[in-house]
Amino acid sequence: MNILLVYAHPEPTSLNGSLKEFTVNRLEKSGHRVQVSDLYAMKWKSALDADDFPHRDKTAPFHPSLDSQKAFEQGTQSVDIAKEQKKLLWADALILQFPLWWYSMPAILKGWIDRVYAYGFAYGVGEHSDTHWGDRFGDGVMKGKRAMLLVTVGGWEPHYSARGINGPMDDLLFPIHHGVLWYPGFDVLPPSVIYRTGKMDQKRMAHIQDELGQKLDNLWNIPPIAFRRQNDGDYVIPSLTLSANIMPEQSGFSIHIDA
Amino acid sequence: MNILLVYAHPEPTSLNGSLKEFTVNRLEKSGHRVQVSDLYAMKWKSALDADDFPHRDKTAPFHPSLDSQKAFEQGTQSVDIAKEQKKLLWADALILQFPLWWYSMPAILKGWIDRVYAYGFAYGVGEHSDTHWGDRFGDGVMKGKRAMLLVTVGGWEPHYSARGINGPMDDLLFPIHHGVLWYPGFDVLPPSVIYRTGKMDQKRMAHIQDELGQKLDNLWNIPPIAFRRQNDGDYVIPSLTLSANIMPEQSGFSIHIDA
Repeated sequence: MNILLVYAHPEPTSLNGSLKEFTVNRLEKSGHRVQVSDLYAMKWKSALDADDFPHRDKTAPFHPSLDSQKAFEQGTQSVDIAKEQKKLLWADALILQFPLWWYSMPAILKGWIDRVYAYGFAYGVGEHSDTHWGDRFGDGVMKGKRAMLLVTVGGWEPHYSARGINGPMDDLLFPIHHGVLWYPGFDVLPPSVIYRTGKMDQKRMAHIQDELGQKLDNLWNIPPIAFRRQNDGDYVIPSLTLSANIMPEQSGFSIHIDA
Repeated sequence: MNILLVYAHPEPTSLNGSLKEFTVNRLEKSGHRVQVSDLYAMKWKSALDADDFPHRDKTAPFHPSLDSQKAFEQGTQSVDIAKEQKKLLWADALILQFPLWWYSMPAILKGWIDRVYAYGFAYGVGEHSDTHWGDRFGDGVMKGKRAMLLVTVGGWEPHYSARGINGPMDDLLFPIHHGVLWYPGFDVLPPSVIYRTGKMDQKRMAHIQDELGQKLDNLWNIPPIAFRRQNDGDYVIPSLTLSANIMPEQSGFSIHIDA
């Protein structure tokens, strides 16, 4: 299979750098093909702006989504964006690897999402009407592909537990899992989260590699998170609220998983 | 009072541009002093990397937090970072204004957080021991200051309601409200969220400005979100989980608000 690893850490000799090397080697040894988008090494441009659309009508105000739509349709996006989209189409699985900074991804990776996720590619796909709100949340261009987060965290695991002060890790990652990956159609695997990165020794590292390695070996067998499909009847359209008869009285991120 | 508006939209003639102008005018007319960090206009560097610490020991591996700590202590951070920190110290209130892109802030604003929030300034502040886990979540350098999000959203409000498919807006913003603003000590006001930005006309705009104007007039009277203070006994240290006798059996983001 083909795997795209999008990697966002500035230091090659870091724990993240080691985990990236380990991941690539393990996948290649299993016969997979791997491409790495090493965003810092590529000096990836983070800010979505008018320069991303060099052929746009420069007399008109810049409109992020409409300019993205036109350029995507006409094949006139910036070359760096088009290249990453091609990698996504090539991939059977996507891994996003990053250190958790301020409870989310580093800016450079957010900028990869903001720019590569074009209108017509990652959103604005399919019929948009009062009865069908686009091919998204389970449908879309990435349908049939899998995705997984590989996240390192300085803090302790209990701080991110159900009653931990930072909020539960699953909820902190929901906007990425559900909003960035499930939205354009990826099946989303449970994340690999490595806590307390400042306290690493050989024994712990061996254990982490062992766990991660087994997960990578089973990338195509692990059951994805059971997010609800937008277009299978669970949601009222166009309000896009969960039908009153499903998990009645409940609310929040968790109701969008069919437990 | 002094207000810092950090603004992240690439097009000055956009709805966001108008709301920024409106906000600055309204605050100045009330006699406040306003500084605007217009990140796109400043060509703000988004990616935290070794270049942010020009005096670091270049023979050692780059370590984001330790290099940040040293440079902050020694006053050798990159000039653009130090300038924004000075603005934060000057401000009595901070407004972060941005369009919601992929359920979070644009990369350029995330990069402002990643880089300006130095070790010793926004984190790593105060005693760190098994009985006191730093001055954070209600304490910290920003204590006594207020902060508010001003967010524009393309989608419909029901899509972000308690049972909406995107997840509730309050939960999507929790990592910013609690993790980015409350963490270094800001009192966090309820956000101003403007939905369905593609459907704007004069009448709606007048209504939005009226509401926003009243909010800005009352910036010092509005009760902040009642996030729990880390160091007032609600949390068990060092696990930093909510004490078993507070909202027992409950979990998730909402338990960190003293309702």
